Amino acid sequence: MSEKKITTMNGNDMYALCKELFPINRSLTGEGVRQTLAILKRENPELEIREVPCGTKVFDWTIPKEWNCTDGYIITPDGEKIADYKVSNLHVLGYSTPVDRDFTLEELKEHLYTLEDQPDVIPYVTSYYKERFGWAITHKQLKSLKEGTYHGVIKSSLTDGVLNYADCIIKGESSEEIFFSTYVCHPSMANNECSGPVLASALIKYVKSLKRRKYSYRFVFAPETIGAITYLATPVDCMQILDPGKAFYAGGNIFSTVRYMQRYVKAGFNLSCVGDDRDYSIIHSRYGDTLADRVLTNILNSHTGGKFSDYSYLRRGSDERQYQAPGIDIPLVGFCRSKYHDFPEYHTSADNMDLVSPEGFQGSYDVMAACIRALEGNGKYVLTCFCEPQLGKRGLVPTISSKETYQQTLHLKDLIAYSDGRNDLMGISEIIGAPMDEVIDLADKLIKAGLLEKYDERTDI
Amino acid sequence: MSEKKITTMNGNDMYALCKELFPINRSLTGEGVRQTLAILKRENPELEIREVPCGTKVFDWTIPKEWNCTDGYIITPDGEKIADYKVSNLHVLGYSTPVDRDFTLEELKEHLYTLEDQPDVIPYVTSYYKERFGWAITHKQLKSLKEGTYHGVIKSSLTDGVLNYADCIIKGESSEEIFFSTYVCHPSMANNECSGPVLASALIKYVKSLKRRKYSYRFVFAPETIGAITYLATPVDCMQILDPGKAFYAGGNIFSTVRYMQRYVKAGFNLSCVGDDRDYSIIHSRYGDTLADRVLTNILNSHTGGKFSDYSYLRRGSDERQYQAPGIDIPLVGFCRSKYHDFPEYHTSADNMDLVSPEGFQGSYDVMAACIRALEGNGKYVLTCFCEPQLGKRGLVPTISSKETYQQTLHLKDLIAYSDGRNDLMGISEIIGAPMDEVIDLADKLIKAGLLEKYDERTDI
Amino acid sequence: MSEKKITTMNGNDMYALCKELFPINRSLTGEGVRQTLAILKRENPELEIREVPCGTKVFDWTIPKEWNCTDGYIITPDGEKIADYKVSNLHVLGYSTPVDRDFTLEELKEHLYTLEDQPDVIPYVTSYYKERFGWAITHKQLKSLKEGTYHGVIKSSLTDGVLNYADCIIKGESSEEIFFSTYVCHPSMANNECSGPVLASALIKYVKSLKRRKYSYRFVFAPETIGAITYLATPVDCMQILDPGKAFYAGGNIFSTVRYMQRYVKAGFNLSCVGDDRDYSIIHSRYGDTLADRVLTNILNSHTGGKFSDYSYLRRGSDERQYQAPGIDIPLVGFCRSKYHDFPEYHTSADNMDLVSPEGFQGSYDVMAACIRALEGNGKYVLTCFCEPQLGKRGLVPTISSKETYQQTLHLKDLIAYSDGRNDLMGISEIIGAPMDEVIDLADKLIKAGLLEKYDERTDI
Repeated sequence: MSEKKITTMNGNDMYALCKELFPINRSLTGEGVRQTLAILKRENPELEIREVPCGTKVFDWTIPKEWNCTDGYIITPDGEKIADYKVSNLHVLGYSTPVDRDFTLEELKEHLYTLEDQPDVIPYVTSYYKERFGWAITHKQLKSLKEGTYHGVIKSSLTDGVLNYADCIIKGESSEEIFFSTYVCHPSMANNECSGPVLASALIKYVKSLKRRKYSYRFVFAPETIGAITYLATPVDCMQILDPGKAFYAGGNIFSTVRYMQRYVKAGFNLSCVGDDRDYSIIHSRYGDTLADRVLTNILNSHTGGKFSDYSYLRRGSDERQYQAPGIDIPLVGFCRSKYHDFPEYHTSADNMDLVSPEGFQGSYDVMAACIRALEGNGKYVLTCFCEPQLGKRGLVPTISSKETYQQTLHLKDLIAYSDGRNDLMGISEIIGAPMDEVIDLADKLIKAGLLEKYDERTDI
Repeated sequence: MSEKKITTMNGNDMYALCKELFPINRSLTGEGVRQTLAILKRENPELEIREVPCGTKVFDWTIPKEWNCTDGYIITPDGEKIADYKVSNLHVLGYSTPVDRDFTLEELKEHLYTLEDQPDVIPYVTSYYKERFGWAITHKQLKSLKEGTYHGVIKSSLTDGVLNYADCIIKGESSEEIFFSTYVCHPSMANNECSGPVLASALIKYVKSLKRRKYSYRFVFAPETIGAITYLATPVDCMQILDPGKAFYAGGNIFSTVRYMQRYVKAGFNLSCVGDDRDYSIIHSRYGDTLADRVLTNILNSHTGGKFSDYSYLRRGSDERQYQAPGIDIPLVGFCRSKYHDFPEYHTSADNMDLVSPEGFQGSYDVMAACIRALEGNGKYVLTCFCEPQLGKRGLVPTISSKETYQQTLHLKDLIAYSDGRNDLMGISEIIGAPMDEVIDLADKLIKAGLLEKYDERTDI
Repeated sequence: MSEKKITTMNGNDMYALCKELFPINRSLTGEGVRQTLAILKRENPELEIREVPCGTKVFDWTIPKEWNCTDGYIITPDGEKIADYKVSNLHVLGYSTPVDRDFTLEELKEHLYTLEDQPDVIPYVTSYYKERFGWAITHKQLKSLKEGTYHGVIKSSLTDGVLNYADCIIKGESSEEIFFSTYVCHPSMANNECSGPVLASALIKYVKSLKRRKYSYRFVFAPETIGAITYLATPVDCMQILDPGKAFYAGGNIFSTVRYMQRYVKAGFNLSCVGDDRDYSIIHSRYGDTLADRVLTNILNSHTGGKFSDYSYLRRGSDERQYQAPGIDIPLVGFCRSKYHDFPEYHTSADNMDLVSPEGFQGSYDVMAACIRALEGNGKYVLTCFCEPQLGKRGLVPTISSKETYQQTLHLKDLIAYSDGRNDLMGISEIIGAPMDEVIDLADKLIKAGLLEKYDERTDI
């Protein structure tokens, strides 16, 4: 692997990258997506930027036309310019068709979108799969519009272009993978979604900085829903199998990506809304029973003292909907700070750079990095001797015994007590209530002392 | 099936039938049972009325003699007639032997039954298997009796007659059955028990009114305990197997009814105390794990918003004791409004036509009809495409997307998300918290759209 | 078995034996252990006293030298004798090396042990596996020591002697065993630990007094930790197999005791701190799922109405640490009144004869005797007839039936209802909430009436 030292990112670095991505007008397709992916590739050159032609059938869907927009606004009867795309790209309905004509107020209203119960914000509205035009404005502005002739302009195009996404694999010792998914299709909103690609970028650097990697790491940056579906439906050349004998890679078969990922992905995380500093949230897999559920629950428990939001799959809303769909079944959970749908700024102009913070990014990074360390360090070990080992002669417990000394090395003794071949270290961490970082450290000590060995190598009595 | 339109019953119809049955003096055997069964056969001519001779051994029991009673009373020293059978048939101890003689007060008291803590009601008391005579009176009346000579009369007979019961099967497409049990052995008490045979009669009409029936429906009206045991111990000719190849019907073998029902009954319901309008209750099967437990729990949850009484099998008391006995193991639960034993009027003269109501009957009927629809509509389906299907192009979700639109079709999306071959529709209803009627409707839509198919027909990837 | 009547012990007898054992200076090895075992053998001559030479390797441990102590004290600058071994043997650090010299106060303090937050008690402190000398005193005394020259004396020896322990097996009809473990290595402390060997002695007498024993009973009295490890690592001649064909006894193999006990011990109990009258406690096995967990939980529930302390294996601290170690896996729970570590007098001079009481001992004895009866009486039975049996004709329920009579024989009916081959009597006791003594009695009645039979003998329908 690379000789040069990898520079990892801290909360401030992540906030700065988020700020750079924020102004770009992204959508499912178009220039904004390409600009975004280019910046992300600058951060991590391993990223491969892919393109799939519009009109391609992907499972039950068809990739829509490529949308580009350069301007949009409304001129009021008083000559005022409102709903100005150059002020906020949320003003133009996503995938709006072009228009340039007069409207009565009544006609215009059929093309205006507002949020009645949040009258001061511009809502984020799209119409990807049915041709429409429209503008999103604040409800307060809607109420202030007077009778008269309005002139509405949208300078956009729907053309036979491509859908873009990017991915990379950071190889480890095994073909088995940890998978990170995030999305690049929302215009100027900070938490949902610039924060996701930013955290994913930082995690690529973290993974590259690890001295040793048991797992390979897959990162996918794609437009939400259609991008994830396209990714799963399209064979891509980064499915490089380290141990081809073990694989059942189906070549050019349309299902090959799904089958490959079903075989090799051991845990996946969908990253969304990870830049604010309010809550931590897990959105569980369909039955809450995958390795991804276990590790994120474990880490959030020790990181927050149990104070995090625990959502069932019924509360899903992002690309876990595709990776966990029936028949796809890739073991994946959603990770958020404040969960999409559930914070007031969600899908409005209030989701801006004030909502996210360096501290918010750092917290998310710390949790994900701890998940990676937990997965890397996890394993099943058994005690090599009968009965309790004599820890005192190895300097692992005090040699003086009073009522106060027994409790001091309790996690070490508890780890030994449950190293019975029935639990991996993560299971022991859950049983004894000790953080994974500590359990992995203690296990290292015991392995070095010859008291624990890998389960498979065990010689039965 | 029949061309003519089936007339179903509403709450008022059921109340009226209950009122007609109320005055009859039923017991385990005798004229009252036959009069009752004759009225029930008038309602549903499919009912077959059966008879089994007294003295027949049925499993561990022997059918007792047939009891008939025409009169009973006590003349007080003042010449007053009390404990008059013609005023209330509860005054005569059930299965009382005949008597016609004088008593001192002390002698008489050995044959009087009262409820000390409910001094204003006549208790319901029987002595089926030991010959006795006696009268049941209010405790208040007992306290008012003065010294003197009393004359006690009971005009009854115990003869070598028969035990009667009735049953029918309404055939469906399959030999698999839904089973309803109720009983016809209590004298003039309304909730326990006239309500049970009335509801069962209404359900026969409901079942006949269904355009399509996947299941066959068995209804049994028998005296409690000895009747249910007799039913199980006696082969009856309505065990008509639609698919003989699948059956292991044991012919004239004494266990044939048990074996047949073990093989074909998928869910059973014992109907008792279903005419009042207070509570809804389930009495679970022995381990609470049958299809009957699942469906009644599901329906009561959505019907009552979770506000119903949930009794374990330890609280059993009716014919679930026989159908769920070890070695019988027919999957059956008890269904009540206020549960027998637990409402104050239970087994007393206060269980009269004021305790039951048209609304009470209607509620029970609605719950049982919903159970039947849930069982008929249940099935296991899988999604036919990979990832989420595109619902918008089929008009199943709005084509405009804002933060408000996603929640609108949540049950539809949740049904899709869990159509993974692991859950039947009832399981999905439990997971997603949507009523079975809605889940069945949504599944129909998806089947018509080609997005769901029967699990067995699935082509694996 | 023995003709003569066995005299069992009551609470007063146990308290008296505890008082006799209290003053002896026990440690892992030495004269005090031998004196203690000699008294225990006087009570139950079946006990075999064993010895294993110092220096013997036992699994990961080596048996330390034999320690004996005859005196110890400190002379203050004022000529006062403090920390006097003859006043309390807790004053001398366990396994202290000999010493006889002057100390400055500063020098002396490095060899003094106190409990700062319990300033009035002498702590119990040991240094078994690292050579040290020292005295334990109250913290109050430490604070009162003035500058000056102190003279410290400990008359002790560490020699190549032996480690002693004792065991016996009271044979039953089967080689399958119930196992009791307790320890004999603490100096003058009453609850922890004289109470344990005293209760074990009383239980040996109780077991001998039983007319019939299905199980054999093993009792082990050993020093804690090293004694239990030595016991498991050493083949002993009381492993007499009643049915050699079934055994996989490994002869002189070092693991033979472990393998034998894994094969034959069905439930084990570690007895510690069983003489006070405050709480009852169970310390569960590693996963809380053994027969020992079930029976002690069952008995404590009925004995205390559910008011006892339920500790997971994470709260272990006594010889369950060895018998439940990975690879040992002998099904065993800890039984205490107030649990070691958790009562304030634990491991101090305040754990004296005032802390224990005849009532405390009696309660512990009653619980353990009830466990033994529950294990002896347990078994799996099935109903011999179909449907409910007719209990009235056998005089098992009243022949008159009113709303009051049904509840009277509920436990009998519930036992019948769950005698379906799926539950042993202990499982039925748990389901129906009836005490094991009652369930066993009711089952005996039903067996005599021909209504229950052993599960294995069942003829399937």
